[in-house]
Amino acid sequence: MPPRTPIPLITVNPAKKPWEQEKPLHNRWHPDIPAVAEVKEGDLFTVETVDWTGGQIKDDDNSDDVKFVDLSQVHYLSGPIKVTDKDGVPAKPGDILVVELSNLYPLAGDEWGFTGIFDRDNGGGFLTDHFPAAAKAVWYFDGVYAYSRHVPGVRFPGLIHPGLIGTAPSAELLNIWNTREKSLVDGGEKATTLCSVLQTRPLACLPNATGACLGTVKPGTANWTKIAGEGARTVPGRENGGNCDIKNLSRGCKVYFPVFIEGANLSMGDMHFSQGDGEVSFCGAIEMSGKLEMTCQIIRGGMDQYLTPMGPTKLHVNPIFEIGPLEPRFSEWLVFEGISVDETGKQHYLDVSVAYKRAVLNCIDYLSKFGYSKEQIYMLLSCCPCEGRVSGIVDVPNAVATLALPLAIFDMDIRPKKIGGPKVVSRLDVPKSTYDGSLPRFVNPAAALQ
Amino acid sequence: MPPRTPIPLITVNPAKKPWEQEKPLHNRWHPDIPAVAEVKEGDLFTVETVDWTGGQIKDDDNSDDVKFVDLSQVHYLSGPIKVTDKDGVPAKPGDILVVELSNLYPLAGDEWGFTGIFDRDNGGGFLTDHFPAAAKAVWYFDGVYAYSRHVPGVRFPGLIHPGLIGTAPSAELLNIWNTREKSLVDGGEKATTLCSVLQTRPLACLPNATGACLGTVKPGTANWTKIAGEGARTVPGRENGGNCDIKNLSRGCKVYFPVFIEGANLSMGDMHFSQGDGEVSFCGAIEMSGKLEMTCQIIRGGMDQYLTPMGPTKLHVNPIFEIGPLEPRFSEWLVFEGISVDETGKQHYLDVSVAYKRAVLNCIDYLSKFGYSKEQIYMLLSCCPCEGRVSGIVDVPNAVATLALPLAIFDMDIRPKKIGGPKVVSRLDVPKSTYDGSLPRFVNPAAALQ
Amino acid sequence: MPPRTPIPLITVNPAKKPWEQEKPLHNRWHPDIPAVAEVKEGDLFTVETVDWTGGQIKDDDNSDDVKFVDLSQVHYLSGPIKVTDKDGVPAKPGDILVVELSNLYPLAGDEWGFTGIFDRDNGGGFLTDHFPAAAKAVWYFDGVYAYSRHVPGVRFPGLIHPGLIGTAPSAELLNIWNTREKSLVDGGEKATTLCSVLQTRPLACLPNATGACLGTVKPGTANWTKIAGEGARTVPGRENGGNCDIKNLSRGCKVYFPVFIEGANLSMGDMHFSQGDGEVSFCGAIEMSGKLEMTCQIIRGGMDQYLTPMGPTKLHVNPIFEIGPLEPRFSEWLVFEGISVDETGKQHYLDVSVAYKRAVLNCIDYLSKFGYSKEQIYMLLSCCPCEGRVSGIVDVPNAVATLALPLAIFDMDIRPKKIGGPKVVSRLDVPKSTYDGSLPRFVNPAAALQ
Amino acid sequence: MPPRTPIPLITVNPAKKPWEQEKPLHNRWHPDIPAVAEVKEGDLFTVETVDWTGGQIKDDDNSDDVKFVDLSQVHYLSGPIKVTDKDGVPAKPGDILVVELSNLYPLAGDEWGFTGIFDRDNGGGFLTDHFPAAAKAVWYFDGVYAYSRHVPGVRFPGLIHPGLIGTAPSAELLNIWNTREKSLVDGGEKATTLCSVLQTRPLACLPNATGACLGTVKPGTANWTKIAGEGARTVPGRENGGNCDIKNLSRGCKVYFPVFIEGANLSMGDMHFSQGDGEVSFCGAIEMSGKLEMTCQIIRGGMDQYLTPMGPTKLHVNPIFEIGPLEPRFSEWLVFEGISVDETGKQHYLDVSVAYKRAVLNCIDYLSKFGYSKEQIYMLLSCCPCEGRVSGIVDVPNAVATLALPLAIFDMDIRPKKIGGPKVVSRLDVPKSTYDGSLPRFVNPAAALQ
Repeated sequence: MPPRTPIPLITVNPAKKPWEQEKPLHNRWHPDIPAVAEVKEGDLFTVETVDWTGGQIKDDDNSDDVKFVDLSQVHYLSGPIKVTDKDGVPAKPGDILVVELSNLYPLAGDEWGFTGIFDRDNGGGFLTDHFPAAAKAVWYFDGVYAYSRHVPGVRFPGLIHPGLIGTAPSAELLNIWNTREKSLVDGGEKATTLCSVLQTRPLACLPNATGACLGTVKPGTANWTKIAGEGARTVPGRENGGNCDIKNLSRGCKVYFPVFIEGANLSMGDMHFSQGDGEVSFCGAIEMSGKLEMTCQIIRGGMDQYLTPMGPTKLHVNPIFEIGPLEPRFSEWLVFEGISVDETGKQHYLDVSVAYKRAVLNCIDYLSKFGYSKEQIYMLLSCCPCEGRVSGIVDVPNAVATLALPLAIFDMDIRPKKIGGPKVVSRLDVPKSTYDGSLPRFVNPAAALQ
Repeated sequence: MPPRTPIPLITVNPAKKPWEQEKPLHNRWHPDIPAVAEVKEGDLFTVETVDWTGGQIKDDDNSDDVKFVDLSQVHYLSGPIKVTDKDGVPAKPGDILVVELSNLYPLAGDEWGFTGIFDRDNGGGFLTDHFPAAAKAVWYFDGVYAYSRHVPGVRFPGLIHPGLIGTAPSAELLNIWNTREKSLVDGGEKATTLCSVLQTRPLACLPNATGACLGTVKPGTANWTKIAGEGARTVPGRENGGNCDIKNLSRGCKVYFPVFIEGANLSMGDMHFSQGDGEVSFCGAIEMSGKLEMTCQIIRGGMDQYLTPMGPTKLHVNPIFEIGPLEPRFSEWLVFEGISVDETGKQHYLDVSVAYKRAVLNCIDYLSKFGYSKEQIYMLLSCCPCEGRVSGIVDVPNAVATLALPLAIFDMDIRPKKIGGPKVVSRLDVPKSTYDGSLPRFVNPAAALQ
Repeated sequence: MPPRTPIPLITVNPAKKPWEQEKPLHNRWHPDIPAVAEVKEGDLFTVETVDWTGGQIKDDDNSDDVKFVDLSQVHYLSGPIKVTDKDGVPAKPGDILVVELSNLYPLAGDEWGFTGIFDRDNGGGFLTDHFPAAAKAVWYFDGVYAYSRHVPGVRFPGLIHPGLIGTAPSAELLNIWNTREKSLVDGGEKATTLCSVLQTRPLACLPNATGACLGTVKPGTANWTKIAGEGARTVPGRENGGNCDIKNLSRGCKVYFPVFIEGANLSMGDMHFSQGDGEVSFCGAIEMSGKLEMTCQIIRGGMDQYLTPMGPTKLHVNPIFEIGPLEPRFSEWLVFEGISVDETGKQHYLDVSVAYKRAVLNCIDYLSKFGYSKEQIYMLLSCCPCEGRVSGIVDVPNAVATLALPLAIFDMDIRPKKIGGPKVVSRLDVPKSTYDGSLPRFVNPAAALQ
Repeated sequence: MPPRTPIPLITVNPAKKPWEQEKPLHNRWHPDIPAVAEVKEGDLFTVETVDWTGGQIKDDDNSDDVKFVDLSQVHYLSGPIKVTDKDGVPAKPGDILVVELSNLYPLAGDEWGFTGIFDRDNGGGFLTDHFPAAAKAVWYFDGVYAYSRHVPGVRFPGLIHPGLIGTAPSAELLNIWNTREKSLVDGGEKATTLCSVLQTRPLACLPNATGACLGTVKPGTANWTKIAGEGARTVPGRENGGNCDIKNLSRGCKVYFPVFIEGANLSMGDMHFSQGDGEVSFCGAIEMSGKLEMTCQIIRGGMDQYLTPMGPTKLHVNPIFEIGPLEPRFSEWLVFEGISVDETGKQHYLDVSVAYKRAVLNCIDYLSKFGYSKEQIYMLLSCCPCEGRVSGIVDVPNAVATLALPLAIFDMDIRPKKIGGPKVVSRLDVPKSTYDGSLPRFVNPAAALQ
C-alpha cells in the first residue's frame, strides 16, 4: 500500500512569467476560462501559486517597485480546477463544493514576503489620505514566525491563507457583477466617508482587457477578446468567494463554496503569510508565493439545502467558512476603539467603515509613542494577527468598531504604565520610494487599476 | 488584619424606581450631575445597577412591554463616582483613569435577563426592515450559563459586562457632541445604506428633557432644567466610553478612560449577561440588572502620554481596553460572510455596515433551515458570544464582513452535512406582541427616542 | 413567573464552629451520616462551606497556626445532600449522579485565603525533606485575581473549585477502603521514593474517633461511636470522588459520580480559590471558605452503562469529569522537566512521583534566581494555575514529568535571557513560625494525622 | 538580497539504511561520536530524520513487523551538529544552547505514520499486562490532520515534534548515567507497581554493542568498539534532553539545553506526528520520518546563571522548554481519573504511575462501550493529543492522576447521556499479528532491548 502522498496538481516556477507557467495562470473571473487540472473528491492534492503581483516586488530597501506597481495585471490565480465525484461526475450548479485547506506553506526556495503602502495615485488604501506615499516592508520567516528588518521589534506566528480563492461564476452571475459594479461607477459617487481621492482612486475596477491573463486561452483569438472584455476583475470578494481576505482561512479550515458552473472551476492565489482583519494598507498582508494542500468534497444540491439566495436573483449567496483548530493562541490583547465620528470631527450615521478607520488611526497614534514611525504601524496592523470587530451597530448615531492587538508580538510591554510613560525605542524606519517624481513612468497611474 | 472585603459603594433595589434609589441614578451625560459616591485608587468596591430600561420589561410570554417600551427614559446609570488618589487628590482633566473590572455578577435575587426586537416605529434595530414587529426572549441563568424557553436548544456561558460605562464629559466636550449630532439631524440624511425607516427612526437622539433623570439634581430647579436641556443622551458610545457595548469588557479586564473633569465622575449601567458583536437587535444583549466589583488607578497626565487627539479638538480621543483572561474558550466556529452588496442586489462602496448586515442575514437564513424562526436567530445573534469581524476594507468596491458563530452553543451539529441536509427540529417560537394596534398607547412612538 | 433564583440549600457562618452550624458539617465518609438537605434534579441551589481547617488559620504574619494545626479535625464538609428525581424518587446505587458546578465564589465577607507549608512533624508535604519548617502565605482577591503580600510580584486569575466533593460510600465500599489502607499501614513500608520521614508522617490516615464531626449524629450515642470508629478519613481521593483536588473543577464543569447508597448523599468542602496540579505543599491551594452554585441530574443505571469496575469488586470505579469552558487563557508557558533520578542521583524505575518531584525542584531552583525565597516558590507552585504532566511513562528507566508555568502571572519576564542573566529583585519573604520549640504544644504531633 | 531560505543541513533518504545516509546516523549517546555538520547561531537550517525504527515497520494490515521489531537498533538520530557563535567559536560546557523549533513536517514523499503495541516479550509498554499481544495502527495525513483505517471515527490535528532531541553528554556525565542505570539493573528489583513482566522486560537498557550505529565512526575500529561499549542507549530522557517525548515541543517552541561538550553536538530523531502525554503504548506516538526547521542561540555561561545542579554532581540538571503558540485549540474535554489503588484493588502509597495507569484503564474501558476495541483505544490514547496530569500528590495514601481527552477528535458525541446510553458503532478492529508463534524468529526476544 503506497503512502498517501499529496498529488502535485499545479506547480509554479516563480522565475517565470505567469503566462509562461506549465499550467498558465489567470487574473480574471469568467466561466469560459478552461480548467487546467482535474481532481476527484477525496484526493489530497497541492497547488502552488505566485505572489499576487506576479513577481513585481523585490526584496530590497527601496519602495519604487511598490510605487509603480502595475495594478492592471494582479491577482494571478492558479487553476481553474475541475472537481468531480469519485465516479468522475463533475460538480454541478446548485451543489456545494467543500474545500478543506489541510496545510499551507511558503513556496520552497522563495521564503519571504512583503507588505506595502500604495501611492495615493496608484492603488491607495484604507488610510490613503493619511499615508499618500508608497512604502514597503520585507518579511523573512523563521518557520512559523515572521520578522522584518523594516519593522524592528515585532515577531509573530503566521496564519498562512489564500487571500483569494473561489469558484467560477456562471455567465448569469458574471453579468450581475458587471452590471451592479458599473452602476456604482456610473453613479459617480463624489463623496465617500473613507477618503477624498476618488478622482484618482476608482470606485470599482470594471472589466478591462489591459493586463488580462486568461490561462490557456490564447491572446489574439476571438475567445480571448470576448473573455478579456467581460471577465470580472479579481479585486473584490463576491458571491463565489474571491478576494475575501479572511485571515483565518488557514490550516485545517473548510470552505463551503456555491457551485455555479459544471466542474466548479476552483481557482486560488494571493497567498498571505499573515494578515490583520481588514488588510488595511491594501497591499497589506505579508504577500508571498505559496503552496496549498487540500481536499474537495461535493454536497449534491447543497445550495438549496443550506444557502438562501437574497434579493432579485437566486445567485446572490455567499460561501460559509469553518475555522481550523490551529490559530495562534494569544492571551493578552490591547483594544483600540473608534466611533463613527471622522478625524475632522464630523458625525456619520452608524458607519462602521468610519468607526474602524478611527480605531486603526487611534492604534497607529498610540504605538507611534513607542518609537515606531506611523508607516511602520500602518503596515504592521495590515499584516499582523490583529482582530477588527464590529462592536456596536445600533446605538445611533455612532457605530463602534474595535481593533484588538495581541501584546505578545512585541519585544516590549506596550501597555499604558502608571510610571514613566511609554518606553521610546529608536528604530530604523521603513524604506520610502527614492524616485523624485520628475519623470512619471506612466501618464495616468490611476488608469492601471481601472 | 481584616479580610479585604469589597466596599459596597452603590446598591440598588430593583423594586424601586430609578429616582427612588438611595443613591439616585441618572440617564444623561453632563459635567454638572454631582457625584453620589467617592473612592480612592486601589479601593476594591462594588456598584449595583438596574437593567437599562429601569424595570419596564417583564419575565413573561408577551412582547407588549417591548413593543411599547418608553425609550425616553432608558440607560439608567449608577454613579457618578468621584475618584481620588491615595492622598484624596481627585483625578484631573488630562489624567487617565484605569478601571479594572475585577468581577461581574447578576444582581442577587434578580437572576434573569431579556433580549428584545424593538418595533420598527419604536426603536427599531439593525435589521428593522426585515423584523418590523416587536418580540422578546427571556433568559435564565444556570450559574455561568444562559438558556431561554423562547430559544430552545441553545445554552452558552456569559461574558458579563457593562454595556455602558464612562467618565463625565467636560462642558466643552458636551458641546462638541451636541453640535455634531445636531448637524447630522439637521442635515436630514434621507437615504441610508442600513434601513428605509428614517421617517420613524431618528438619526440621533438629541438632548431632550422628557424622561431625564439627573441623580441628586432636583426636578423643578433651574439647575435641573439646564442639565436636562443640555445633557447628552446615553445611546451612542463617544469619547468618554459610554454605550460602547464591547462584549469582552468582562472579568479581569481593564479600561483606560480619558478624564475630562475633576474627579473623573465615572458612571455605569446597562449590564449584559452576554452579547454578540454588534448587539444587532438593539435591545440586544441579555439585558439585566447586575453588580460590578472593581478598582481604579489614576495615571497622572496620561492623556498626553498615551492618547493622541485627532481633528479640530484635543478632546477627540477614545478609551483603550485590555481584555481579561477568562473568555469562553470555543474551538469550533462556523463563519458567515457578507459583502457590501445589499439584499436588493445594489452595489455599495466599501461599506462595512452593509457587509455586516448581509453576513447577519446570511446566518439567520442558514440557521432557519434547522427549525428556528428568524426572530429567534436574530435575537440569538444579538446576545450569544458570536464575533463580528471587519475582514476586508480595501478591495473595491466590496467590503467584506464576517460573523463567526461558536458551534458548542447548540445542542445539535449545525454544520453543513454531505448526507441528509439540515436536521429540522420543531421548536416553540418567541412570543410576539398580542396588541392588535387599534388603540395606540402613544401618538407618535418615534418621538420617544427623540 | 418568578425569576429562577438559586435555592440557598446550605449556609454556613464562618464565625461559628463546624458543629454549631445550622446544618452541622461532617469530616468523615460513612453511609450512616444522615442527609441534612434534599434537592430534586434540575433544581439550581447553593451550598456554602467553611475552609478545610474549620477556621484554624488566621490572616496574619505568623505561621504558628500552620505549624500547630490540628489535623485530626480537618476537611469539614457541607452535606450530605439527598438527591431525588423530579418525582421525588431518590438516586439509587448503580445510578450516575451528574453534578454541574455552575458557579463558584468566595464566601461574602470572608474574601481571603491561605497557602501553607506544614511542619515535617505535623503534616509534611510533597517536598517535606526540603522544606521541613512551617510557613504560610495569605492571599487577597481582586475579583477574579489573587495576590499576596507574602509572595510579591505575582497575580493570577483563580479557577475556584471544591478540593473535596463526593457521594457517600456504601458499607461494602467503606470496608474495602478501610481494609486496603490498613494493609498499607500494616505493611509498614519503610522506604519510599518520596521522602524520608515516614517515622513521623503516616502512610495513611485510618479511622480515628478523635476529632470526628458527624453532622446530626450526636456525640455520646452508640451510633456516633460506631460511625466515628469506621468512618473513612477525608484525606485521599477515592472511588466516590472525595479529595481529588482537580484544579479544573470550576465554573461550568460537570462531574459524573457513581451512586453507592440511596439518595447519593453528596457532600463537599475544602474550597480553593486556585490550585496548581499536584497541590504540592499539601496545605497547598489558596484555601478558603466559599459558595457553590449547582444543579444535579440522575442517569438511571448509569454505572452499568458507562463505568467499568476493575479488580475484585464492582465498586472499584472512579468519577468522570467534563471541564468547563472558562479556564484562564494563557499563551506563554515555561516548562520544567524532571526524570526519575532523585536528587541524590539515584535511579528509579519509571517512577512519575520522583520525576514530578524533580520537575518541581528544578522550577523552584530556577525561580529562586530571580530573588524569590524557595519557600515562596514552593507555595506559589502549589496554588497558582501551573500544570503538572505525565510526559513519558514508558522509556525505561526514566519516567519524565513536566511542570508548565504560565508566564503572565509574573510582573517581570522570567525567561532565560541571552544578555544579563536573571533579573534579581529584592523581596519580602514569607512569615515563618516564631515559636522556639521549647514547649511542645502537643506530645506527638504526628499522632494528630493518624 | 537573497531570500532567507533554510540551509538543508542534514537530509535523509528513507529508502536507504541509516548507516548508508550521506551523513550517517547514530543511535547511541557518546561525546566521541563526531559532528557531521556545523551551524552558526542565527542560521535557519533544516534536519531530516528517519523514523525511530529505521524503516522496520510497514504500511500494511499485519502486525508481525511490530511483534518482531529489532529493538537493539532503534532511535536513529540525525547529527551530531556542532554549534558555534557568529564568530565561529563553539558552544562550550556551561553554556546553554537555545534551540528554536521553528517548523516541523512529515518527510516529503513519506507522509504516513504508525502506532504500535509491542509484544510483552519484545518491548512491552505501560499496560503490557493488559495488552500482551502486538498490534498496530497506520495513520495517513490530510495536511494537519491524522486519520487511520485501523481506528475509524477519529481525526485530529497533529503537534509534530521530535520525540528525541538532545546535546551530547560529557564523558563524566555518560559515566554517571551508566553507573546509576547499572545499579538499578544490578539491584534486580523484582516487583514493580507497573507490570509483572520484569522477567522479560528490562529495568534499563545498558550499553550494548549489538545494533550500535555510530555515525562516521567505522565499525571494526578500536574507537567503534570503545564507543559502542560505553555509549548510552537512547531509550530514556536524561539530563541532556534525549527521549523526553514531550508532546508540545512543536511549532515555534524553544528548548534551553545544557551544553556538556565543546560544540554542544546536538542530535535529534524519533519524529512524531502527534502524541498523547505519556506515550503509553511505548511505540506510541504516530511515529514517522520527518523534517525540522530550526535556529540555535548560545547563552554563554547560562548553566551557572539559570540551572541549579542537584545531588552529588553539578551535571545533574535538566533542559527547560518554552511552548510554542500554535497548539490545537480544544474547548471540550472529558477527564478520567485514577487513584493509586491498582487494578487488583491493592493500595499503593502516593504512586502517580499507578494512578495514571488506572486513569488510562478507566478511559479505555469507557470508550470500549462505544464500539471500539480496547487495543484501538490504547493506541489512540498513546498518540492523540490527550493530556495526562498529576492532579494530587499529597493526599495520603492516594495519588490522583487524570487523563483529559478532547471531544472534538471523535465523529460522535462520547459524553455520558441521560437517555439511551452509549451509542455503539460497529467498527473494524486493528490488525493483529498473524504469526502463530511456532517458529520464533529470534531465540530471546527480550534480549533485543537489553
